[in-house]
Amino acid sequence: MPTQLEIAMNTMIRIFHQYSCKEEDRFKLSKGELKMLLQRELTDFLLCQKDPQLVDKIMQDLDANKDNEVDFNEFVVMVAALTVACNDYFVEQLKKKGK
Amino acid sequence: MPTQLEIAMNTMIRIFHQYSCKEEDRFKLSKGELKMLLQRELTDFLLCQKDPQLVDKIMQDLDANKDNEVDFNEFVVMVAALTVACNDYFVEQLKKKGK
Repeated sequence: MPTQLEIAMNTMIRIFHQYSCKEEDRFKLSKGELKMLLQRELTDFLLCQKDPQLVDKIMQDLDANKDNEVDFNEFVVMVAALTVACNDYFVEQLKKKGK
Repeated sequence: MPTQLEIAMNTMIRIFHQYSCKEEDRFKLSKGELKMLLQRELTDFLLCQKDPQLVDKIMQDLDANKDNEVDFNEFVVMVAALTVACNDYFVEQLKKKGK
């Protein structure tokens, strides 16, 4: 019986491959696949971000590779960066409330 | 309605705070809290790893800070590293099967 954290890790792997297999290299996200993944899988989550440019900034960073593809490592770094940003916001709110 | 990826990201935040609030600094994991989190939340997942020393290596890396505490950023880096290792194994198996 997997734990919730293990299910979360499996979800990251599954979602990546669900989009990466659509076209070209099946183990990498093309720009189109990445955009589709962001729009469909991260819409609500990104709404809670204070920085509306966050996704654009991350996409620019990923583009720095200049191969126009995102491998699983880069994808996980992106998810980690977004999660840290959301945690920062959560902690800030908790501290404001004096909890 | 959050997506599965958003739920996965929320799970990482929730699990971290569930353990970090047990003692001392409530926004950081002490060594004891980290060990408890690894033992309770990552046991099954780690069993599928080919490298039995993986967790020890990650803990040593985290210890490099020498403050004996793990903040959320460090925790997410650890989860990301484990997820990449599991994905590598998954992709290797797929390629072996010629899929």
